Amino acid sequence: MTEKSEDSAPLLGVDIGGTKVAVGLVDRDGKILMQGRKPMVANGTAEAALHAVTGAIDSLISSATAEIRSIGICAPGPLDPKTGVVLNPPNLPCWRNFPLVEKIASIYRVPVKLDNDANAAALAETRWGAARGFRYVFYATIGTGIGTGIVFDNRIYHGNTGSAGEGGHVSIDYRGPICGCGKHGCIEILAAGPAIGARARTKLAGASRNSAILDLAKGDVAAVTSELVGQAYGSGDPLAREVLQETVELLTAWLGNVVDLLDPDVLVLGGGVAAMLRPFFDEIKNRLPSWCVNPHASAIPLFMAHYGADAGIAGGAALCSEILP
Amino acid sequence: MTEKSEDSAPLLGVDIGGTKVAVGLVDRDGKILMQGRKPMVANGTAEAALHAVTGAIDSLISSATAEIRSIGICAPGPLDPKTGVVLNPPNLPCWRNFPLVEKIASIYRVPVKLDNDANAAALAETRWGAARGFRYVFYATIGTGIGTGIVFDNRIYHGNTGSAGEGGHVSIDYRGPICGCGKHGCIEILAAGPAIGARARTKLAGASRNSAILDLAKGDVAAVTSELVGQAYGSGDPLAREVLQETVELLTAWLGNVVDLLDPDVLVLGGGVAAMLRPFFDEIKNRLPSWCVNPHASAIPLFMAHYGADAGIAGGAALCSEILP
Repeated sequence: MTEKSEDSAPLLGVDIGGTKVAVGLVDRDGKILMQGRKPMVANGTAEAALHAVTGAIDSLISSATAEIRSIGICAPGPLDPKTGVVLNPPNLPCWRNFPLVEKIASIYRVPVKLDNDANAAALAETRWGAARGFRYVFYATIGTGIGTGIVFDNRIYHGNTGSAGEGGHVSIDYRGPICGCGKHGCIEILAAGPAIGARARTKLAGASRNSAILDLAKGDVAAVTSELVGQAYGSGDPLAREVLQETVELLTAWLGNVVDLLDPDVLVLGGGVAAMLRPFFDEIKNRLPSWCVNPHASAIPLFMAHYGADAGIAGGAALCSEILP
Repeated sequence: MTEKSEDSAPLLGVDIGGTKVAVGLVDRDGKILMQGRKPMVANGTAEAALHAVTGAIDSLISSATAEIRSIGICAPGPLDPKTGVVLNPPNLPCWRNFPLVEKIASIYRVPVKLDNDANAAALAETRWGAARGFRYVFYATIGTGIGTGIVFDNRIYHGNTGSAGEGGHVSIDYRGPICGCGKHGCIEILAAGPAIGARARTKLAGASRNSAILDLAKGDVAAVTSELVGQAYGSGDPLAREVLQETVELLTAWLGNVVDLLDPDVLVLGGGVAAMLRPFFDEIKNRLPSWCVNPHASAIPLFMAHYGADAGIAGGAALCSEILP
């Protein structure tokens, strides 16, 4: 194999979740060439879970034409990106202090890297996506939870123990509701998908207001979700707008904290809730200077992430590109 | 002058405040060899203020035996550490977009560096003080306000525009009291000296409680300050303890946010309020894991700053050491 073809070998990205393993081949420009997915076996033995992962990788390799020279894996944290050990993720009870990188590397005999989903996606956005060309990147994926990643000079910022960039658990309300993590007022418990649904349910229960949200939920307040709020907003529903606007203000307060600590040159938001909030991006930018002392806040670009549902595959592949020349 | 004597030339640190200019000669181990101070002329012309600074420098140089090879200056922000321009600090109305580094460098014909107080002090603590040997340093000085600095690998982290590390304006209460900066619930408005005084005054006004604080204030609730709270705590006053304990909980919530974003390997607190809270440092360490998701939080050392009132001089000198070989 020549030097040139080696440089252009595709990157294998693996995205391990609680219910599925997604795998993909990604070229050196971040384009996903081929992908597949298999069910994850998260509640069984460590070996069964590993087998699910290798099964997904094997099926991709068998249909690939080029040789695989590295594997990048993203998974839910906590994990140790330095040692490649999965620690004790709530979504993956199969693995407790499981040396995933060592196992995968010994099977495929290529360099393997592991990082958490949000860090990996942040790197993919920096290499190939919305944050390309920026030096101080703050990325957040907002969906059922809020995960964040920090990339400085094209490298994930890990901090001392690999636990940096947990922005979803930055609190803006120390007396606020208790997050799944045990802290009060984390932005995740205030502004992720479930909070949007809950906010709408409270408003609907507390007042006799007509709303398209309720129609979409067939009159059942308990059935209201963030997705229905998003749909109702799309049809011009005022209550849905109110719910999303309140969420946007909380996210802006939180981004203000991030900006005052990190002074990033770009903010990138991804995930389903970010997509739903896209019509409010200008409002976030306009409100940001009220929520930080940084005199240059109004000049910080705010972009929607380039990768959507494939963020994990692209993230895994981006981790590969940290290994390869 | 030989190579060796060049390496051991003392560093000249300048600390510009709203009322005084402090200057000092600092050796390469961070020891302050000699110091002086002059009144600052902050409300006059730009030239008069510059003259106050050069007067302080001149008097130090005239009594120094070694040649000065660089000058490091710290001043209240906002300023631009990259261009050496003082922007528009509220405490220094004399200077608006004033090219301080250029002026001082043209007078003394040596390299000059400028940064804000907290960044410079953070660097001094990392080079010579409590954070020596640490790679991911978060430093805060807590007094009338709260200033913070981040040092990674012995270099101040400035972010994209030089505005990073404004941790005093991280909000933990988005609906809380309005800070001088305009944001709600910044830790500065909740836990710096004035907040401690106000908290004590509220408690004293709200209940008919005996307290040594009131005795120290000669019965005048309006005269209660954070200093008196500290004195009363020293004499075992329960109300003073309550006030300080509430302050400590807020600071811990805030440090939890910092830890979750930055994953530092050391936390250093300086300033008068930090000195007053020193008996609570163990409590902060014990409570920190409840305020962050970082699984290694309990292992992060929390130290009192090495430099006290001389933090500005040491900080200026530390900036010099970024210039020199």
